[in-house]
Amino acid sequence: MPNILITTVPFAAQNPLPIELLKSAGIDFMINPLGRKLKEEELADMVGSFDVLIAGTEPITDRVMSRAPNLRLISRVGIGLDSVDLLAAERRGIQVSYTPDAPAPAVAELTIGLMLSLLRSVHVVNAQMHRGEWQRHFGRRIPEVTIGIIGTGRIGGRVLRRLSAFGTPRILVNDIHPDSQVAPKLKLEWVDKETIYREADVISLHVPLTGQTKNMIRREHLLQMKRDAVIINTARGGIINEQDLAAVMVEGHLSGTAIDVFNKEPYEGELAKIERCLLTSHMGSMSIDCRTRMEIEATEEAVRFLAGQPLQGMVPPEEYDVQRQGL
Amino acid sequence: MPNILITTVPFAAQNPLPIELLKSAGIDFMINPLGRKLKEEELADMVGSFDVLIAGTEPITDRVMSRAPNLRLISRVGIGLDSVDLLAAERRGIQVSYTPDAPAPAVAELTIGLMLSLLRSVHVVNAQMHRGEWQRHFGRRIPEVTIGIIGTGRIGGRVLRRLSAFGTPRILVNDIHPDSQVAPKLKLEWVDKETIYREADVISLHVPLTGQTKNMIRREHLLQMKRDAVIINTARGGIINEQDLAAVMVEGHLSGTAIDVFNKEPYEGELAKIERCLLTSHMGSMSIDCRTRMEIEATEEAVRFLAGQPLQGMVPPEEYDVQRQGL
Repeated sequence: MPNILITTVPFAAQNPLPIELLKSAGIDFMINPLGRKLKEEELADMVGSFDVLIAGTEPITDRVMSRAPNLRLISRVGIGLDSVDLLAAERRGIQVSYTPDAPAPAVAELTIGLMLSLLRSVHVVNAQMHRGEWQRHFGRRIPEVTIGIIGTGRIGGRVLRRLSAFGTPRILVNDIHPDSQVAPKLKLEWVDKETIYREADVISLHVPLTGQTKNMIRREHLLQMKRDAVIINTARGGIINEQDLAAVMVEGHLSGTAIDVFNKEPYEGELAKIERCLLTSHMGSMSIDCRTRMEIEATEEAVRFLAGQPLQGMVPPEEYDVQRQGL
Repeated sequence: MPNILITTVPFAAQNPLPIELLKSAGIDFMINPLGRKLKEEELADMVGSFDVLIAGTEPITDRVMSRAPNLRLISRVGIGLDSVDLLAAERRGIQVSYTPDAPAPAVAELTIGLMLSLLRSVHVVNAQMHRGEWQRHFGRRIPEVTIGIIGTGRIGGRVLRRLSAFGTPRILVNDIHPDSQVAPKLKLEWVDKETIYREADVISLHVPLTGQTKNMIRREHLLQMKRDAVIINTARGGIINEQDLAAVMVEGHLSGTAIDVFNKEPYEGELAKIERCLLTSHMGSMSIDCRTRMEIEATEEAVRFLAGQPLQGMVPPEEYDVQRQGL
């Protein structure tokens, strides 16, 4: 009888070490046979008698847990916890671990790449060139624009520090826990979110999905932004209202957006019809090194748990408080 | 009778200052009425009795100059001199100025953006998403790869210094005049071009187009590169043989390329059929600030010349030597 269900996909696709760790520890495991993100019902049907989940972003709800009588650990490959009902896990005595640091460098680097593409309309011009059209678009450089970063934690902080090599833009930042040391080489202006919406040319989101951030950016906020602003979301789908975003862009608002994360993945929606939307498939953490590190850390945690050793990546109490307070 | 022919387009499209400079100096001028890059014959027919050319990258050959009896200054908006027959200009007593520093920050920033897109397959995934396909591609981060920079002058040096915020990749560099101080924060390995072809995962070109660099990278060199290497050319068309590049990519070689410059522009060719080619329309210098600075500097030079003042952006003797020696 296998002990571990691995739901996240791909798994060990680039580096076999996570599977070797399980095998050398003599642990049985099963990898998600559907090869894609599971729906709640599918996971509920699959979770059976497993002791440990090595999990992606599929919904691990109270209902799923009610079908998993032996489940004692959820080891998340990644940082977001919006997919896990932490309070249900707590009630049921199921521990939850995650790998909050591993994905950050890859997400930050992708974010900078998306930012540079948006500022120069690279995605639009590339599509035109492949259709045989030649148009030279004017763009803007980072030192020319005002950049607004919402969320200056592990990922937002790295975005800021990477920006420091590009000259000195005006940088507006917002976080519920401002950290004056997050990017010592840059002059940061700590402001409220509305100031960022109104004044930034480039807005990038690096907050978790919580009760407080769900639907945080709706039509009214999008319309506060400059007509030629660009927005980047490599955080979580649902923070920007997707329908509102598509609607204002169809109306001609915003010069570009880069969206890596969606309400429902795989994404099927209106943004795909808008050429100045640069779309990627939840690839923020998908650099070979970061993805491998995430998988290894989550697997090591599962191995430690089954060997009765102390856990190293336990989700801290604050994350439970966020869900408890419905924040 | 106008004194200045402005052939480069767009001109003063984002900032009217260059035109205001000409007007306030009481200088007559004509802007290229075709609104696109001129062919040799078109320029020859247009150059007539003008005293000064404010020029783009159109061919300013001996034949063109033979049709311009009054021409005394060619003021290039930009850095490349491959389009100007410097020796013919010298024989005819026509001075040549350029703006070598102005475009560099914009080209360097675009290059970093293209590099990040290539490493994460952003252009390929964006095309897939717009077709309704969802595939999560693995990518690589800058600190994971070996980067090869050919040409470490104004632009290549800036690319290197911007890379310094992204961690510490292995960096191979090549230049005919190695400068050990080009990027003090980075550990650089000065190597020959063949070492870069063989060992780099990312190859970026920042050399001028000269007799020595024309067709520098042909089929045999492309095949020396790693099968999953990526190449970026934001320098000049013709340095990489376009037909050879398209052919090896169709055969499955190279995981991606980003090409901003072409033998013949507007570009019409085989690369447009290859999805993993990221194509832009000679936009390296096309940030609003850099383009404006280039136009202002070239215009100021023309105004100085017509006022009998000393020039500040004269092309140095080395550039004439390059053409004299057929390098």
